[in-house]
Amino acid sequence: MTAPPVRIGLLGCGVVGSGLLLLLRERSDAVEASLGAPLRVVAAAVRQPAKPREADLKGVEVTTEPLAVADRPDLDILVELMGGAENALPPVRRALERGVAVVTANKHLLSVHGEELEAARAATGAPLRYEASVGGAIPVLQALDHGLRTERFTLLVAILNGTTNFILSTMEREGRDFAEALDAARNLGFAEADPTLDLSGADTSQKLALLVRSAFRVPVAHDSIPTEGIVGMELEDLRQAERFGYVAKLLGIAIRAPVGLDLRVHPAFIPKRYLLASVRDEFNGIYLRGEATGNMMFYGKGAGALPTAQAVLGDVLDLAREIVARRRAGAPGAAGGVRAREGLSFEPSGHGHARGGAGDAAARLPLDDVRTKYYLRFLVDDRPGVLAPLAERLGSHGVSIAQMFQNAGVRGEASIVMLTHEARDRDVRDAVAVISALKSVRKSPRAVRIFDL
Amino acid sequence: MTAPPVRIGLLGCGVVGSGLLLLLRERSDAVEASLGAPLRVVAAAVRQPAKPREADLKGVEVTTEPLAVADRPDLDILVELMGGAENALPPVRRALERGVAVVTANKHLLSVHGEELEAARAATGAPLRYEASVGGAIPVLQALDHGLRTERFTLLVAILNGTTNFILSTMEREGRDFAEALDAARNLGFAEADPTLDLSGADTSQKLALLVRSAFRVPVAHDSIPTEGIVGMELEDLRQAERFGYVAKLLGIAIRAPVGLDLRVHPAFIPKRYLLASVRDEFNGIYLRGEATGNMMFYGKGAGALPTAQAVLGDVLDLAREIVARRRAGAPGAAGGVRAREGLSFEPSGHGHARGGAGDAAARLPLDDVRTKYYLRFLVDDRPGVLAPLAERLGSHGVSIAQMFQNAGVRGEASIVMLTHEARDRDVRDAVAVISALKSVRKSPRAVRIFDL
Repeated sequence: MTAPPVRIGLLGCGVVGSGLLLLLRERSDAVEASLGAPLRVVAAAVRQPAKPREADLKGVEVTTEPLAVADRPDLDILVELMGGAENALPPVRRALERGVAVVTANKHLLSVHGEELEAARAATGAPLRYEASVGGAIPVLQALDHGLRTERFTLLVAILNGTTNFILSTMEREGRDFAEALDAARNLGFAEADPTLDLSGADTSQKLALLVRSAFRVPVAHDSIPTEGIVGMELEDLRQAERFGYVAKLLGIAIRAPVGLDLRVHPAFIPKRYLLASVRDEFNGIYLRGEATGNMMFYGKGAGALPTAQAVLGDVLDLAREIVARRRAGAPGAAGGVRAREGLSFEPSGHGHARGGAGDAAARLPLDDVRTKYYLRFLVDDRPGVLAPLAERLGSHGVSIAQMFQNAGVRGEASIVMLTHEARDRDVRDAVAVISALKSVRKSPRAVRIFDL
Repeated sequence: MTAPPVRIGLLGCGVVGSGLLLLLRERSDAVEASLGAPLRVVAAAVRQPAKPREADLKGVEVTTEPLAVADRPDLDILVELMGGAENALPPVRRALERGVAVVTANKHLLSVHGEELEAARAATGAPLRYEASVGGAIPVLQALDHGLRTERFTLLVAILNGTTNFILSTMEREGRDFAEALDAARNLGFAEADPTLDLSGADTSQKLALLVRSAFRVPVAHDSIPTEGIVGMELEDLRQAERFGYVAKLLGIAIRAPVGLDLRVHPAFIPKRYLLASVRDEFNGIYLRGEATGNMMFYGKGAGALPTAQAVLGDVLDLAREIVARRRAGAPGAAGGVRAREGLSFEPSGHGHARGGAGDAAARLPLDDVRTKYYLRFLVDDRPGVLAPLAERLGSHGVSIAQMFQNAGVRGEASIVMLTHEARDRDVRDAVAVISALKSVRKSPRAVRIFDL
């Protein structure tokens, strides 16, 4: 077959861009056999064209100007791998306005400028795909947008950040403290020089917002999600929790509650027997519960050049297939990319059908009102009469204790570990704040939610 | 939007068929929002039209004649849920010959008549989808045929049969023997009256053949896969294996070895820390390793009316989307369904691109030559000098022992448990056969492969 190629414009040629070029070259036979047409990168925008790089840019028009690529009249698909919200916005918006399909791995762009991009593509119906931005190589968005499109999900619990998962796994497995585990992550390339976005949970909440959009069909602003990171997690907490059969994970949570969607990101102790407990190191796992499907999990590498490049290629292939099918059907606008309005993952907000069924899809359950169990650890003076005021403060806030251990420490200090029954989240936090101010309490108490639905 | 409906003919209205009708009714809004057109069941073939049933067949032309449904001139998609290879063949073949897209949950039909169906659709290019026949609700075939289409997989290890997995999980968790666990599975509806296909491993090898076709892009006859079931697995073996940190699973295995594909189905002991070890009870798990993606797993319910119906609906939606897109593009043959030759999961054998890369894609590594570790248990006379001839026979076959435990038993009987180092599979089996004939060996030895790559 010598069908005309599907033409790709590439923005950015760092590790992921180079990985994509490598896959396109290595797998060109398989791509062409699957598509019935070759995929060809016709133009690339890079910051330093003269820089020597592994990637093969032969036959590719190289420029430093992303807009010049987005403006090419012969473009079928624009692939954005520049990173950064502000740089990436103009060319991506331009392509969508022109009706050119876009694939991006840039969750930051989507989080900050999602509504603007949505508006840009609303007029042309150009598809915007971003599988690589959530769960790395795991084809979860495609699954949610294809076969599972009409499933009604009631729960989504996910480990979406490889850096923090590697840190927690390393602390647990090797008995290292937080700082040592962070160093190990840096040395292995699992943490960036500035890991703030990862450690703070912001990366997870951005990904959760995108996932919830596909799984629950409701638009969610990532910064509306209550988010806590793993900074402050101590090795001693992991050790204590292990005695109760728990492991620590940074979770992105979405639960369909009667009054609205319960969305949150925080570290949690989960039972060892949970499948998510076996998602270790740099891996990601997305656990879903659907009304028809029951429980389901997707597991795989959350980051890395080739896993990310493969996810980008998956989106490109899917779009290219539609483009080739439309060309065969003799449809107009071959250069305009895919124009179908359906089957897109990024739908106009307020227009999409809410999977939630009854009730206002955008209604939310505030974190204050979430009912959850807690792990609490207090460092107190090791003397008689210390426990009573703690127990009294908890009780007066409606928090009841399920299990308790007291360990004698050094320097006249004792450590009290408690697991609570389910209580209102706000009440637990208020009780802990009050206890924190007690004279006999030596240090800010540690409080970690337990997730064992 | 009042686009004309996508018309479905339904063959069979048992539990899965009724589940599909239920989902179509409950989710009609979501379906129409996603497709831009309604899905409508226009005709159904059932064995007993007068039988009262939960499913709503109002407005549906009901017949007892499957061919009459397959022959309808207005049909867009034929959904086959009759079961049975021989009954289902004629209507499915007819639809494919007419260019009508087919969705089936019938792995038996595909296993027995796959080549014939392939020939039938070769002329028209009509797609044949069967997500529901492998891994129940898990959208693994769609993932392999969409985003992961060009990935090169090197390994696939899967738990594909809910009945046997439930039995093994129950034996381990509750300390019941095989017969008791089988009864429990029957009582809970996880085992059929005649569970032969499940227990023998045949169900697993049929599913493995379909998976390998999508993951490795090579045609495989299910009856060419060396297959052992779980009959004969004793509680004592599970207890002994647990001491070494292993759990038992019935695995479908596909590994790309240098000389060819290593395909097999057998029970195996796997380390508890493996993600697959956490796939318990009636759940399925498909673990994959790809050159770009690394390790990945799909997990979910392997059977059940609604999970299966949801997988069928996923295929129907995917096909309907293409049909609607082609109608919009003004392509001819609206009644003829999807005619694109690409993006199909069932490709002509010998024509499809082998993902394996170099070498003959269909080349196979015989089971005899597979190198694997083994768990062995011998019941022997409890007297001096018994161990030496066992060890000698193993050694002379090139099988070396990694760990050994001897337990004194009752009635002058001792039990010897050994874990071997990796050895040639045939050599281990030969050694066991020779040992089995020794006078001091009281019972046929137990031999279970260990899978811990």
